[in-house]
Amino acid sequence: MNNLSENEVLDDLQNSYYIIQKNDGFKFGTDAVLLSDFAKDCGKNKILDLCSGTGIIPILLAAKTNAQEIYGLEIQEEMWEMSCRSVKYNKLEDRVKPVLGDLKNCKKLFTPHSFGAVTCNPPYMKSGSNVKNIPESIMISRHECMCDIEDVIKAAADMLTFKGSFYMVHRPSRIADIICAMRKFSVEPKLIRFVHPYEGKEPVLVLIKGTYHGGSDLKIMPPMYIYEKDGRYTEELDIIYKGQKG
Amino acid sequence: MNNLSENEVLDDLQNSYYIIQKNDGFKFGTDAVLLSDFAKDCGKNKILDLCSGTGIIPILLAAKTNAQEIYGLEIQEEMWEMSCRSVKYNKLEDRVKPVLGDLKNCKKLFTPHSFGAVTCNPPYMKSGSNVKNIPESIMISRHECMCDIEDVIKAAADMLTFKGSFYMVHRPSRIADIICAMRKFSVEPKLIRFVHPYEGKEPVLVLIKGTYHGGSDLKIMPPMYIYEKDGRYTEELDIIYKGQKG
Repeated sequence: MNNLSENEVLDDLQNSYYIIQKNDGFKFGTDAVLLSDFAKDCGKNKILDLCSGTGIIPILLAAKTNAQEIYGLEIQEEMWEMSCRSVKYNKLEDRVKPVLGDLKNCKKLFTPHSFGAVTCNPPYMKSGSNVKNIPESIMISRHECMCDIEDVIKAAADMLTFKGSFYMVHRPSRIADIICAMRKFSVEPKLIRFVHPYEGKEPVLVLIKGTYHGGSDLKIMPPMYIYEKDGRYTEELDIIYKGQKG
Repeated sequence: MNNLSENEVLDDLQNSYYIIQKNDGFKFGTDAVLLSDFAKDCGKNKILDLCSGTGIIPILLAAKTNAQEIYGLEIQEEMWEMSCRSVKYNKLEDRVKPVLGDLKNCKKLFTPHSFGAVTCNPPYMKSGSNVKNIPESIMISRHECMCDIEDVIKAAADMLTFKGSFYMVHRPSRIADIICAMRKFSVEPKLIRFVHPYEGKEPVLVLIKGTYHGGSDLKIMPPMYIYEKDGRYTEELDIIYKGQKG
């Protein structure tokens, strides 16, 4: 590939697709892989990914689902531009559409209530928390400087069809903030799964699904474990990673 | 013991204390044992148990803690009367005080903001849900006919000292209702633990601790499992049951 900029790498997603990432920038992690797997059975044709970054979730969803229109909204021009190149490289232009813009303006960017599913792997950390001398782009990807949980969920509620599905991955410590924001914007929590590194350890991630104007019947799933005691992936994670193709 | 009424049994709590229960009435279960264990390190001297029933939580807390004043508030006269007899039988009158009354009136029954900890094992089911032809006392113990989650948490908030601790056990499906009600009444969720019957199964109970006017730093604990695959108690449950004495 000859359209990589300096400091960029082309990572093989093991699903016949690739993604352009920065060597020293924010890279996708297990959270993106788990979120796309969590959302893969949404059965929706039109999906919007908020805080889309370099487009990892839309590209993974293109492999895991049959959705025909997967939009990725990203506020940072540099990351949006990388996602455009990744989409082109993967010849996914017909299905994956990166959009540059602020989710607080999403009602001007998209037709309200037109997406069957909305996904989001947002910045996890509160604005101002543990801020060190890090590049601005990484800061925006990790910290709630440009948007917080309420902004994300309000945008999802504005975009979802009636009974549409919202999927998010976040830190377990924020689950109270997430649930209260979901209730505030009529996205009823329906499914929660905590992801633990090992058996007997506290969770490091939480996957949550909500339904816009859904009834209240929340289910907590059995815990997901990432690693066996010997450090290998658990069978479940192995299947998720190997089954990127869905 | 000669002050048992018809249909009553005296159950050995294995901690040198006993409890009077009805053979065909609402009996305490694993939830009460787990809640008292969850709350045992509260380090408070004055504790209030809401929806106290036959007084199981105050009696277990009397064994597990050094608290000097443990009040149990119960709305059903028959159960309150049984708890008074249990307290007397255990010679716990100095420390455990059963009170007959409605938690919606708790500000008239107790000095507001005077309890370092409040515990509650409330009715789990929504009023009107799955109502069959069951005795009224069991109905009131299981269904939210006399009080719901918001009533319980409002009462707890009214009774807790500044930074006092609230401990509840409930069904996992109600966790969104619980968290939103806690936030509404300034009882910040601090610790959540899901209790699963077996590994790989969905949780059947949730233990939640909140702090009145606490800061937001919620921790999700590793899952608790009740049984091993072969049906024996897990080591953790075995310790909790054997260690009723605390």
